[in-house]
Amino acid sequence: MSFRASESLSEQIAQHLAQQIITGDLVEGERIQELRIASELNVSRGSVREALLILARRRLIEIYPRRGAVVAEMSVAQVRGLYEVVSMFLQLVVRKAASNWRQPDMEGMVSQLHRLQSNVDAHDLEAFYEATFELFRLIQRFAGNPYVEEILDDLQPAIRRSYYLALHTSRRELEESYSFLKGMTDGVLMRKGDQAASLVDEFCTHQCHLVLDSLMRVKQIEAAWAQRHRR
Amino acid sequence: MSFRASESLSEQIAQHLAQQIITGDLVEGERIQELRIASELNVSRGSVREALLILARRRLIEIYPRRGAVVAEMSVAQVRGLYEVVSMFLQLVVRKAASNWRQPDMEGMVSQLHRLQSNVDAHDLEAFYEATFELFRLIQRFAGNPYVEEILDDLQPAIRRSYYLALHTSRRELEESYSFLKGMTDGVLMRKGDQAASLVDEFCTHQCHLVLDSLMRVKQIEAAWAQRHRR
Repeated sequence: MSFRASESLSEQIAQHLAQQIITGDLVEGERIQELRIASELNVSRGSVREALLILARRRLIEIYPRRGAVVAEMSVAQVRGLYEVVSMFLQLVVRKAASNWRQPDMEGMVSQLHRLQSNVDAHDLEAFYEATFELFRLIQRFAGNPYVEEILDDLQPAIRRSYYLALHTSRRELEESYSFLKGMTDGVLMRKGDQAASLVDEFCTHQCHLVLDSLMRVKQIEAAWAQRHRR
Repeated sequence: MSFRASESLSEQIAQHLAQQIITGDLVEGERIQELRIASELNVSRGSVREALLILARRRLIEIYPRRGAVVAEMSVAQVRGLYEVVSMFLQLVVRKAASNWRQPDMEGMVSQLHRLQSNVDAHDLEAFYEATFELFRLIQRFAGNPYVEEILDDLQPAIRRSYYLALHTSRRELEESYSFLKGMTDGVLMRKGDQAASLVDEFCTHQCHLVLDSLMRVKQIEAAWAQRHRR
């Protein structure tokens, strides 16, 4: 059975395309052509098709009956919906983490916070961005629930896309995000699950508004351009 | 692009296999052979492979590097994890439903309750089972969150498998389930989101214990058989 080999090739193709969507190189509504990608990457159409199914599952593209695959829209309903679900899951995760961590786990969380702090000091946005996901990977384990981990993994690309946008939207966001992540982790370390959960909720609401504002500004700029073009 | 056509064939194959897993015709740990299924159903290996990816996503099978696809285990951690996540989602859904339903939606929910009641009266377990999912489909819409609907859809086969087992485990479970579903829907209709949510939580805990007891009994019977065989 050649399942694994082909899965890992389509996984690679999926990650290649995901990166372009997350960073905005491929924009919402843009068509993704199976044939063109197959020839660009020199892989089979079957592998590209599997990669597109993976991306659809990770909610980065939509597959339509005749139009094929297009980059998923970031609509108001979708952004709100994403943060609502993510907040719910992360609240569960930090509550579990607050009661389930053991002494040997402490060092990992503390040193991850230090890494984030030094990324803020160096204004290294990309490193901070990656370190955030590493922190959540550490904390997520404590949920002890395979479904929570799998669903959060599936949501991660959509979260990455929003978080990337949020961090690049405002200069202050790096400090804001750090102070939230520190407060949340401190809550976990002090076994204060409620406190950590309410910070998660606050931060998700904050980021949701930031992303929605940013999307609205983009649409206003597009509208202004369209109007200028019409004159 | 022939995406849709092939997706719908693999979807059909996936549903065919899902049904066998849900009703216990295929048991946990049983191997699912790509080639055998392709020849039995007279379809291509590619379609079967896509169907297996769909089933893995719906958490009914696991795909291992060299062993291939096997029917997913129902371990204690998985059953607990499933009910924890389902309870969290359904609590969100009924809270939203309690505040968002409008007058024209009322009739659908009330008549669905009547259908469930008459299934209980007729002791029609299969019809009751399907009607439960129809009721949740009605209520789920009110969440107004595309992620919630998609994640619940993906979890549905795993939920079906557990719910099927629970309903077939105890004679009393049909009445128990009905009284829960009625209380929950009444809570939604009376705009009492908290009441509906706490009933959801109670019912999920109850069903989780029922499924775990049933799995434990099966393992005890297997162990007893194995011992008898050894003598």
